Amino acid sequence: MPNSTLEDRCVNTIRTLSIDAVQAAESGHPGMPMGMADAAFVLWNKFLSHDPAHPEWYNRDRFILSAGHGSMLLYSLLHLTGYDLSLAQLKNFRQWGSKTPGHPEYGHTPGVETTTGPLGQGFATGVGMAMAEAHLADKFNTQKFPISDHYTYGIVSDGDLMEGISHEAASLAGHLKLGKIIYLYDSNQISIDGSTDLAYTEDAGARFKSYGWDVQEVDGHDRPAVEQSITQAQQETDKPSLIICKTHIGYGSPNKQDSAASHGSPLGEEEVKLTKKQLGWPADKKFFIPDDVLKYFRKAEKKGQERFEHWETMFEEFSNYEPESAQTFENQLSRSLPENWDDMLPYFEPDQKGMATRAASGKVLNSIASGIPSLIGGSADLTGSNKTWLDDAGIFTSDNYGGKNIHFGVREHAMGAALNGMSLHSGVIPYGGTFLIFSDYCRPAIRIAALSNIPATYVFTHDSIGLGEDGPTHQPIEHLASLRAIPNVQVLRPADANETAWAWKAALEFREGPSLLVLTRQALPVLQRGDKNDASLTMKGAYIISDSQKETPDAILMATGSEVQLALKANQKLKKEQIDARVVSMPSWELFAQQDQAYRDKVLPPEVKARVSVEAAAPFGWERWIGSTGTAIGLDRFGASAPYEEIYEHLGITEQRIVDETKELL
Amino acid sequence: MPNSTLEDRCVNTIRTLSIDAVQAAESGHPGMPMGMADAAFVLWNKFLSHDPAHPEWYNRDRFILSAGHGSMLLYSLLHLTGYDLSLAQLKNFRQWGSKTPGHPEYGHTPGVETTTGPLGQGFATGVGMAMAEAHLADKFNTQKFPISDHYTYGIVSDGDLMEGISHEAASLAGHLKLGKIIYLYDSNQISIDGSTDLAYTEDAGARFKSYGWDVQEVDGHDRPAVEQSITQAQQETDKPSLIICKTHIGYGSPNKQDSAASHGSPLGEEEVKLTKKQLGWPADKKFFIPDDVLKYFRKAEKKGQERFEHWETMFEEFSNYEPESAQTFENQLSRSLPENWDDMLPYFEPDQKGMATRAASGKVLNSIASGIPSLIGGSADLTGSNKTWLDDAGIFTSDNYGGKNIHFGVREHAMGAALNGMSLHSGVIPYGGTFLIFSDYCRPAIRIAALSNIPATYVFTHDSIGLGEDGPTHQPIEHLASLRAIPNVQVLRPADANETAWAWKAALEFREGPSLLVLTRQALPVLQRGDKNDASLTMKGAYIISDSQKETPDAILMATGSEVQLALKANQKLKKEQIDARVVSMPSWELFAQQDQAYRDKVLPPEVKARVSVEAAAPFGWERWIGSTGTAIGLDRFGASAPYEEIYEHLGITEQRIVDETKELL
Repeated sequence: MPNSTLEDRCVNTIRTLSIDAVQAAESGHPGMPMGMADAAFVLWNKFLSHDPAHPEWYNRDRFILSAGHGSMLLYSLLHLTGYDLSLAQLKNFRQWGSKTPGHPEYGHTPGVETTTGPLGQGFATGVGMAMAEAHLADKFNTQKFPISDHYTYGIVSDGDLMEGISHEAASLAGHLKLGKIIYLYDSNQISIDGSTDLAYTEDAGARFKSYGWDVQEVDGHDRPAVEQSITQAQQETDKPSLIICKTHIGYGSPNKQDSAASHGSPLGEEEVKLTKKQLGWPADKKFFIPDDVLKYFRKAEKKGQERFEHWETMFEEFSNYEPESAQTFENQLSRSLPENWDDMLPYFEPDQKGMATRAASGKVLNSIASGIPSLIGGSADLTGSNKTWLDDAGIFTSDNYGGKNIHFGVREHAMGAALNGMSLHSGVIPYGGTFLIFSDYCRPAIRIAALSNIPATYVFTHDSIGLGEDGPTHQPIEHLASLRAIPNVQVLRPADANETAWAWKAALEFREGPSLLVLTRQALPVLQRGDKNDASLTMKGAYIISDSQKETPDAILMATGSEVQLALKANQKLKKEQIDARVVSMPSWELFAQQDQAYRDKVLPPEVKARVSVEAAAPFGWERWIGSTGTAIGLDRFGASAPYEEIYEHLGITEQRIVDETKELL
Repeated sequence: MPNSTLEDRCVNTIRTLSIDAVQAAESGHPGMPMGMADAAFVLWNKFLSHDPAHPEWYNRDRFILSAGHGSMLLYSLLHLTGYDLSLAQLKNFRQWGSKTPGHPEYGHTPGVETTTGPLGQGFATGVGMAMAEAHLADKFNTQKFPISDHYTYGIVSDGDLMEGISHEAASLAGHLKLGKIIYLYDSNQISIDGSTDLAYTEDAGARFKSYGWDVQEVDGHDRPAVEQSITQAQQETDKPSLIICKTHIGYGSPNKQDSAASHGSPLGEEEVKLTKKQLGWPADKKFFIPDDVLKYFRKAEKKGQERFEHWETMFEEFSNYEPESAQTFENQLSRSLPENWDDMLPYFEPDQKGMATRAASGKVLNSIASGIPSLIGGSADLTGSNKTWLDDAGIFTSDNYGGKNIHFGVREHAMGAALNGMSLHSGVIPYGGTFLIFSDYCRPAIRIAALSNIPATYVFTHDSIGLGEDGPTHQPIEHLASLRAIPNVQVLRPADANETAWAWKAALEFREGPSLLVLTRQALPVLQRGDKNDASLTMKGAYIISDSQKETPDAILMATGSEVQLALKANQKLKKEQIDARVVSMPSWELFAQQDQAYRDKVLPPEVKARVSVEAAAPFGWERWIGSTGTAIGLDRFGASAPYEEIYEHLGITEQRIVDETKELL
């Protein structure tokens, strides 16, 4: 605590910057940065291989502040070590337009590797990063050129470890023997409600050992001990490491140390002064960084530059020795897709018997996988059902990180976060599958992807009552609406095999967030198409799949996925009754909304008020397309267990219903 | 395996009924019932205290099939022991209208204690049941009259234990020392993808010990060993028990035992015959129940009746000795609310400075708690923020199960399932709090509540960008829409303190599913009201809070929660510009949709097309109320970190914007 050494003062600089920023904002969490400043300093000063001038350098160690509420710890370190984050930004903590938001946001602040705050996300995202690193190392490294060779470090908290996702991710990481994960666990025994004894008395060390982790425990304020434990963790290459750092939250605050009072509120002007006094700090200086402290921290710049250049040189040599491999590596890093790669998309012949869109998706995946070597993915224990298996690509295991088929286990939430981590890490294009119903289990990870513009593809199969006998526990109803409501998410529900191929194209080309492929269990006809309704129109989000004779149709039937065939059949019936309707297939609301007004008006002419939508899901939100005079055929209730054709019949998602509702409108 | 004893044949009856039902349906999971038949038989035959004639008898042991896909195990047991579930129902497995849906559904089949299938839910729901049992025992039991004294048994699977929610719930149960939980873990080492070695190699026993559970391991086919382990688990009163039953999935199937092939598909006619042969069963008989087997199982009826009557007699005596306590107990069981209990709702004086609706909610809770003794709840480590604390009610701990303030820890998902379990158990009216953003973390439990018509109240605070500095990771955007889209969910977003009081009333009186109170962090004016806009109109879902002078207004401004005050202010401005608008406060879409057409048309006259909605959230779905010509002011993007007033301003949720959009429409 006393400032006897320069390093002491470095640590206290982190503490006081954090205190001051929280105080200035009158908002934030000072206690965690104060408690973890020692351990974080050791990690950043002695171990973290990074280059502040090149925050996107591939082979940097990744650092994740899973306990994102302690954001000032990270912002302090970023500023002190020389990232493009000025002191003015720190002073502007939590203010409009600053680069220092309340919780770290990826893409917003250089050096922030992932968005954290919702607890457990960072923990699990790091597992995905380590998976990507291991995969690329296996694929590209040679004895002489270990171009992919970095650690994934993190700081995790009591709250992170209480969340269920930490269990899923830790169990998976242990299973996969991801030895390059090293997490410092800020065990301060205080959560927002008070002592963790109120709710959390498990033996976390024993728990992590049960997952196959290496576990150490140290005094988190004993810097040499922390240093030794990180060294030891590095030497443990077969197990992820958890270093339990026993710390004092709000360290240095005479009245708030070891208390929830320092967790989520500013210390208060008076206590800030008292704390600075206790830390041997000038009590009246704010945002004070002693010159020698800054100089000491900024050594990271030179060290970083050397490391970066060393790697660049190595990579150059690698490129000479292994030009093809190096090129592939670079392509993978840039997430570039081969030119005209949609030529690889399979074409499916029209076929009344047809195939499930999940089956089509499996074929698409296997068609494009050879041309897109960075594609890697799997399923949360539903590989066969989700059709996510890549032929001849091996299984991603601790013995074979080069494998591309990932068995995530029944761990949808960790899968979602791992997809985020893999995508953020760069070098791979990840996808993951489960039933659409279980999108609820990974929803917080989907949201992080949306918020952080992380591309990741979800293969959500068994997308409606069409899954049949498994019944209402497994039949999505509200899921389409609830996912469409998230900004930056691209929801794609293709109507047949060929739309599915193009939906994959839309998914892989979308960079602003996650893409969700919503696919059937049941077979659907592969539709007959011509020039005017080519499946490539999927990319427009909605298109006329069957037009009226008249220029202005009597009515518009619109549908998505498995209900498009119903609309087409209903249309045939209507024709016989001299009703000249148009059918619009609408695989993606988001893509359609992005088209220009002219196109949208062409597909859905404003003057046509007789509009019927059909989707075997909650009709929530369809008013947007059908207007106040239209009819949305959907499900305002949960499903039922039975053969699916019967459920459709009983719940009124039928051709005849479409016909009747259309006539009712006219 | 051979049928040397009657008990062997009992077990094989469970197996063959399950096989036959799955085969008849050509759909389902035979392997689990085959593997767990021995252990389940022991539990049901030797231990389970239940009365098939009174499936709702309070003091029955609860049995939860967390691995809900093995539903035929449960249906077989229910039929065999004499519940109102005929053999015809078993033959009708997974068919339309049957009582034997693909996964067990609460309320649908007598004897099914909770809806399972989505993995981990049953596990965590049982923890809630055990919490309720412990609470009521502490509150009502006397030495002589242990009226609340039962176990919560369950069968859990590899998949259950992989899910994150199992971690949260197990950690909580261990912390709370819920010794009456006894779970049999079907450790068959097979999941849908194949061997669990593909993804799941943790030491589950060590993991559960780290949570403070008692762990035993037995051969799940060694019935005497299973019996002994359950006896031992009962004797361990301070720790929940996990009995790891090593089993063979698909036990008895010559070609599919120990293989994923028996997990989720019928065995096939041929293999069914081979299996029956191997089990020493008549190969050609289907749904065969030997007479002596049925007789043996049906002894449960008499035993059950005796137990039921014994308890009834005890309760009668208890009523004589402790009439008041017995009356309270009965009231609690029936979930009855005191007559005119809304007289207890506090009234808040109009106040421009006002208070946050979360603060009002805290006051309401404390006003009504004394009159509703069954009210019990807490928060996922945000007690102070959610204002869920009940004064003078103690903390629910292992030393004091009578306490009413529950510290769930940072475990939103387990909290949701625990609320379900408490509500299903009966005797308590549970509530739980977290930030609205973290509704995503407990969404699967909310869905189970909706699907099963389980009343449970969520206190979701910090409901929009109005939470300010914590930033976009914590600011709900899509959550209102995504929750409104779920059938049977009542979403309530009150506009001020008095609406909050009535929202609580609506919540506690709603029995068809969960109620979600969506509350602000920031202070809101307590609005001035008269007879025509009394806060009790909250119960109608939407009402005219400020009417136009004209009978038919020029425009309608509608808003929910914190945006109602903005609409009211905008209305004042419009008045000055001679625009005579009406303001509608719309705390609950669901309640409003339930009103008759006349009321809805009175509030929102169809002829008024100039409609503006305002909600600091995704505008998704508002077209329902504003029509195709209206304007929805909302947020099509994520939020930002800053003081909240600035965020409102920058993102255009302002009085002036409402004024401008209204004028634009006119």
